Amino acid sequence: MTVSPFDHPLLAGLLGDEEAARHFSVEADIAALLDFEQALAEAQAECGVIRHEAEAAIVKALATFRPDTAKLRAGVATDGVVVPELVRQVKAAVGAPHDAYVHFGATSQDVIDTSLVLRLRQVVDHIGLLLGENVVRLTGLELEFGNRELMAMTRMQPAIPVTARDRIAAWRAPLERHQERLKELSGRLLVVQFGGAAGTLEKLGDKAATVRAALAAKLGLGDAPQWHSQRDGLAEFAGWLSLVTGSLGKFGQDVALMALVGADIKLSGGGGSSAMPHKQNPVKAEALVALARFNAVQLSGMHQALVHEQERSGAAWTLEWLILPQMVVATAAALRLAAELTAQIESLGH
Amino acid sequence: MTVSPFDHPLLAGLLGDEEAARHFSVEADIAALLDFEQALAEAQAECGVIRHEAEAAIVKALATFRPDTAKLRAGVATDGVVVPELVRQVKAAVGAPHDAYVHFGATSQDVIDTSLVLRLRQVVDHIGLLLGENVVRLTGLELEFGNRELMAMTRMQPAIPVTARDRIAAWRAPLERHQERLKELSGRLLVVQFGGAAGTLEKLGDKAATVRAALAAKLGLGDAPQWHSQRDGLAEFAGWLSLVTGSLGKFGQDVALMALVGADIKLSGGGGSSAMPHKQNPVKAEALVALARFNAVQLSGMHQALVHEQERSGAAWTLEWLILPQMVVATAAALRLAAELTAQIESLGH
Amino acid sequence: MTVSPFDHPLLAGLLGDEEAARHFSVEADIAALLDFEQALAEAQAECGVIRHEAEAAIVKALATFRPDTAKLRAGVATDGVVVPELVRQVKAAVGAPHDAYVHFGATSQDVIDTSLVLRLRQVVDHIGLLLGENVVRLTGLELEFGNRELMAMTRMQPAIPVTARDRIAAWRAPLERHQERLKELSGRLLVVQFGGAAGTLEKLGDKAATVRAALAAKLGLGDAPQWHSQRDGLAEFAGWLSLVTGSLGKFGQDVALMALVGADIKLSGGGGSSAMPHKQNPVKAEALVALARFNAVQLSGMHQALVHEQERSGAAWTLEWLILPQMVVATAAALRLAAELTAQIESLGH
Amino acid sequence: MTVSPFDHPLLAGLLGDEEAARHFSVEADIAALLDFEQALAEAQAECGVIRHEAEAAIVKALATFRPDTAKLRAGVATDGVVVPELVRQVKAAVGAPHDAYVHFGATSQDVIDTSLVLRLRQVVDHIGLLLGENVVRLTGLELEFGNRELMAMTRMQPAIPVTARDRIAAWRAPLERHQERLKELSGRLLVVQFGGAAGTLEKLGDKAATVRAALAAKLGLGDAPQWHSQRDGLAEFAGWLSLVTGSLGKFGQDVALMALVGADIKLSGGGGSSAMPHKQNPVKAEALVALARFNAVQLSGMHQALVHEQERSGAAWTLEWLILPQMVVATAAALRLAAELTAQIESLGH
Repeated sequence: MTVSPFDHPLLAGLLGDEEAARHFSVEADIAALLDFEQALAEAQAECGVIRHEAEAAIVKALATFRPDTAKLRAGVATDGVVVPELVRQVKAAVGAPHDAYVHFGATSQDVIDTSLVLRLRQVVDHIGLLLGENVVRLTGLELEFGNRELMAMTRMQPAIPVTARDRIAAWRAPLERHQERLKELSGRLLVVQFGGAAGTLEKLGDKAATVRAALAAKLGLGDAPQWHSQRDGLAEFAGWLSLVTGSLGKFGQDVALMALVGADIKLSGGGGSSAMPHKQNPVKAEALVALARFNAVQLSGMHQALVHEQERSGAAWTLEWLILPQMVVATAAALRLAAELTAQIESLGH
Repeated sequence: MTVSPFDHPLLAGLLGDEEAARHFSVEADIAALLDFEQALAEAQAECGVIRHEAEAAIVKALATFRPDTAKLRAGVATDGVVVPELVRQVKAAVGAPHDAYVHFGATSQDVIDTSLVLRLRQVVDHIGLLLGENVVRLTGLELEFGNRELMAMTRMQPAIPVTARDRIAAWRAPLERHQERLKELSGRLLVVQFGGAAGTLEKLGDKAATVRAALAAKLGLGDAPQWHSQRDGLAEFAGWLSLVTGSLGKFGQDVALMALVGADIKLSGGGGSSAMPHKQNPVKAEALVALARFNAVQLSGMHQALVHEQERSGAAWTLEWLILPQMVVATAAALRLAAELTAQIESLGH
Repeated sequence: MTVSPFDHPLLAGLLGDEEAARHFSVEADIAALLDFEQALAEAQAECGVIRHEAEAAIVKALATFRPDTAKLRAGVATDGVVVPELVRQVKAAVGAPHDAYVHFGATSQDVIDTSLVLRLRQVVDHIGLLLGENVVRLTGLELEFGNRELMAMTRMQPAIPVTARDRIAAWRAPLERHQERLKELSGRLLVVQFGGAAGTLEKLGDKAATVRAALAAKLGLGDAPQWHSQRDGLAEFAGWLSLVTGSLGKFGQDVALMALVGADIKLSGGGGSSAMPHKQNPVKAEALVALARFNAVQLSGMHQALVHEQERSGAAWTLEWLILPQMVVATAAALRLAAELTAQIESLGH
Repeated sequence: MTVSPFDHPLLAGLLGDEEAARHFSVEADIAALLDFEQALAEAQAECGVIRHEAEAAIVKALATFRPDTAKLRAGVATDGVVVPELVRQVKAAVGAPHDAYVHFGATSQDVIDTSLVLRLRQVVDHIGLLLGENVVRLTGLELEFGNRELMAMTRMQPAIPVTARDRIAAWRAPLERHQERLKELSGRLLVVQFGGAAGTLEKLGDKAATVRAALAAKLGLGDAPQWHSQRDGLAEFAGWLSLVTGSLGKFGQDVALMALVGADIKLSGGGGSSAMPHKQNPVKAEALVALARFNAVQLSGMHQALVHEQERSGAAWTLEWLILPQMVVATAAALRLAAELTAQIESLGH
C-alpha cells in the first residue's frame, strides 16, 4: 500500500527522503519501543525497583526478541496502540517469574511517545545537517553570482535593479534563524515521556523521579516531568518544520518565477515533458512550493491536537500520528531538493 | 517506508482501508495509466487518427508490458511525473514504426488525471457501498433501541430526555444527504481528462472532440472538455469526503462521550490498556474523531490547489497528490470503523 | 474595533463587500432574530398553539421594540448566546399575560440558526448575481479578444501557442459549474431550524410538524427536520464559497503572472507605489489570490465544526460564527474584484 | 460592519478583547504609520541625510495632521496599501520645499510592517501580562484544591485516582513554557522593517545602516536587516499564539468535560439557556475550545504566506492582514476567558 507519496516507490524519488523516512518504518519504531523497555528495566534495576535478575532476564530476552507482526497489527486494530500486544509478546519471551517486571510501572503512551522522541532526535540531527548544507550552498551561490545585477520584482512588477546577493540573502537569512530556533526548541522536544497509567508513576513511589532521570540518561534524552497531555513540544516542532519548508517554498517560487520570465536564471537538468521535448521544467522548484503548502496545511492539524482532553486523548494523539511523520519527511525532502536546486543554478543575474 | 499510517503495516489495521488503499498502489496506478494509453490507441484507430496496425501493435505490446520501476522512479525525480519515462518504455516495447503512435497527441497530465479518475470511480463505488451499509446499520440500531430514553446533552450539560431515535437520526440523516450529494457530484468528477500539450488537442485537428468522446466511452467515463487547470471537481470531491468523515466524527465523539459518562451506552470489544487491564477504551470512536479532524485539515490543501496557475501548475498539481489519496483512505477507514462501532453497541439508552 | 479587514474602514474598500457585510451587522442579525420570533407567534396562533390575542400582543410589541444592546452584550458574555437576554427584553415589552408565549417552545439555537439562514438567503441571491455578472464579463472578454494568440504556459515554462479563448474558458467554465452547484445545495441550506430545547419540539406535541412548516413558510424558507447538531449544510456551503474564491484565485494568479511577464496583457488602473511612481501593480489580481487562500484556510475550520457533539456543542457552534461570515464576505469581495479586474483588461493576447 | 465576532458589538463581549483589539483600530494603525514617518525624519536629520529644517517642518506638520480617511479608503482600493495616499496627504500638509523629505527613501512596506511591529510590541506586553495572570491563578487553584482527589480519565475512560494538583500542572506547565518561548522569539519579532523600494535602501547610500539603526532606536525596536520578503518572524509569532490558545483549549475542554460528568468540578456563573432555566452552561470553557480551534485553523494561513514571492508579494502580504490581527485578539480573549474561568471554579476534586 502506498497511499502517501512519501511511501510511494515512484513518487518518493521526488517527494520523499529515505533517511528521514527510515525512522518511521515499523522496524525503527519497534526497535525504539524495545529500547525503551530495556532501558526501563536497566534503570529500575539500577534504582532498586526491580531485581538485577529480572533486568538480566529482560535484557537477554530482548536481545533475540522478534515480534509477531500479524498479532501486533490485530492488537492495534483493537487497542488503538501497539503496546499492549507487544508487551504481551515480550513478557512471553521473558517468561515467569521475571515477566512481571517487563514494562513495569509504564503505560503505552510512555513507550510510544518516547520512541517517537528517540527517532526525532535522529531526525533533528539529519535535518540540521541538511539545513547547514543549504546555508553553505547558498553562500557558495552568493560567492559565485552575488555581484551580478537582478531586477527586483515587487507585487509582480519590475521595481529597481538590485544584486543577486540581495535576493540570495532573502533565501539564506531565514535558514540561519531556523538554525537558532532549532537549538532553542530541542531542549523542550528531546525529553523522555514517563508517567505511568495516569502520569503519576504511582507504582514507583518515592523512586519515581530517580528512575525517570536514569531512564532518560540511558536513552540519551533530557529528563522532564511527564507531558502526556501537554503536546506543545511536538506542535512547536511541527511549526518549526513548516517554517523551514515555508522559507524553502519562497526559494522555490522565486526560482520558478525566474525560470518563467527567463532572463535572470539558467538551470541545468530541468524536467522533461511527454508532449513537448523542448521543455525544461523547474520541477524541484515547484516541488518546494508544493511541500511548503503541504506542511502549512498539516500544521493546523498538529495544533488541533493540542486540545488533548484529560489525561490521555486517543483522538488527539492519533491525529498526531497521522500528521507529524509526514511533516518530518516533507521537510527533509524539501531540504534535499533545495540543495539540489541550488546546485542546478548555472547562472543567476547578469 | 511507511511514513503514513495509511500505509503502515501495524497502524493501517486501525486507520487504513485495504480496498481503498489498493487503488493507490503503484500497480493500480500504472495499470490505469496503461489502460489510458491502450484506450487512446483504440479510440484514435476507430476515429481514423492512427492506423489499425499501429493500434494492434500498441495493444499487443501493452498486453505483456512490464515497466522498469527503477527507471520510473528516476524519471519522476527528474521530470516530476512518471509519464515521460513510462511512455519511453512503452514505445520501446512497441518498436518502430508504430511507436510514434503511442501516447499520440496526449500529455502527461491527460494520462495521470484520467488514471486518477478511473480509480476514483472504483473508490466512489466502494465508499458508496460503505455509506449505504452505515445507513442500514444505524437503521437497525434505531429499530433495536430507538424507543429507549436518553438524556439529551446541550452545551455539555443535561438538557431534557429524548429518545435514542432522536440521537440516531442525527447520525443517520447527514449520511443520507451525503448519498444525495455523491450522486450530484459524480457526474462532474468521473470525466475523462484529455487535452494534449496545452489543452487544445492541437494534434488531432477536427477529430479532437470525437476522439475524446470515444476515449471516454472506452474507459467508462463521462466526456467533458479538458479541465487540466480547473480542479474544482477534485476539490468538491475532497469536500464531500470531509463532510462524510465530519459526520462520522460527530458519531464517534457522541459515542466516546456516552462511554465517558457511562450510563447511556454499552460497547463490546473496547481496546485494552498496557497499564490498566480493567479498561475498555472506545478506540474506534476516538479514531473516527481523529479521521474527521484529519480530513478537515487536508481539505484546506485541496482548496489551496485550486490556485492552479496558467495551463498547468506543477506545484498545485503535486499538492493534490500529497493529499487526495489519503483523504480517500481516511474516509473509507472511517466508514469501516463506523460500521464496526455500530455493531459494538450492545445497548443504547435505557 | 476593526480587527478584521472585512470590517476595517480603510481595508474593506479593497477586501470587503458592503452588500454582503450588511447582512452580518448587529442590526441585520437582531432584525432576523425578531423576524423569527414574530413568525413563530404567527405560526403558533395559526396552528392553535397560542391564542390570537397573544400573537397580536407579540406582533405589536415587536413593531416598536428596540433592544438594549449593552445588556445584550453582557448577556452574550455570560450565556454565550444573545437569545436569553433578547427574549427577556421582548417579554418585558410584551408584558403579562402574553409574555409567556414569546419564544414559545423554541430554544436559542432555533432563533440564531434560522436568523443566519434568513440572511444567507439574501447572501445567496447577492453572490449569485455577482457570479452571473462574472460569467457575462468573461464572455465579453472572449468576444473581444478570444481569437488572439497567447503562449500557453505549463509548469512555469512556455508550451505552445493557444488562443485567448482557451484561457478565458478555463476561468469561466468553473464559474458555470459553481452556478449549478449553488442550485443543488440551496435546497439543503435554506431551511428553517426549529427543534426546541433538544430537537424534539416537546412543547408542541402533535402540532410540532405543522407549526414548523408554517414557520418555514412565513419566513420563506424550506421546511426540514431540525439540524441543530447536523452542520453539513453549512459546511457544504462554506466549501462552495471556497470553490468560488479558489477559481477566482486562479484567474487572479494568471492575470498577475501575465502582468509579470508583461507581453500578453494590458491592464488599466493598476495600483501605485509610494516609492516607485512608474509602477502599475496588479492589486486586484493579487487580492484574488489572497482571498482564495484565505477561504481555503477557513474551510478547514468549518469542517472541524462538523464534530458537533451531542445535541448542541457550544464550542463547535461558536467556531462557525468565527468563520462563516468572513468566508461569505471574502467570496462577495472576490467576485466584485474579479468583475472589476475583467473590466481593467484592456488587451489580452496578441 | 461587523463581520468578525472580534469586532461585533455583542459577540466581542464573549469572544473579543478590547485592549488587544484597540491596537488594530484604524486610529492605532495610522498613529503608528505616522510615528514611523516622524522617526524617519528625525533619524535622517540626525544622520545628515535630510536637513534639520526639513525634519522640523515634518514633525510640526505631523503634530496636527488629520488624515482624510475617505481618500485613504479609496487609496487602498486602488493601490492595495494605504501608504501612497497617506504620504500624499502628509506631503501636502508639510508643503514645499520640505515635502520632498517626507517618507524619504522608504516604501509602503517599511511603514506598514513597522507599524504592525510597533503595535505587536504592545500586544506582546498585554498578552504577556495575561499569561502571567493565568499562571498565578492556576497556582492559586493548586494551593486551594491541589491535594484533593480526582479520577484521571484516559481515552475517555476512568483510569486511576490522581490529585487535582496533577491535572492543574498539565494546565499550567505549558503556559510557563510559552513564557520562555515568548522571550526567545521577541528578539526576532520586534525589529524595525526598513529597506526602501526593493530592500537595498538605495537612496541612502553609505548611511543606510546608520539611519536604520537610529530609526529603530527612536521607535524602541530592535535593529535588523530588512525582512520584507522573509516572514518567518510573523509566522513564528502566529505559531506561538496558537500554542497558547491550544493549551488553553485543553484547559477549557477539561473543564467542560468535568462539568459534563458533573462530580469533579463546581463552577459559578454558568451561562443561561432560553429554553431550560435550570441549566448552567460552561460557556467560557467552550469558548476556549472554539478559540483554540480557530487559531489552529488560522495558523495554516500564516504559514501559506511564507511563500512570499520575489521582493514583495501583494498576495501573501494581504493574506497576513486577513489573519494575524484576529489571531492576536483570539489569544488575548482566550487568556482573559481562562483567567475568568479559573475564578469560576468553586470546587475541584473531592
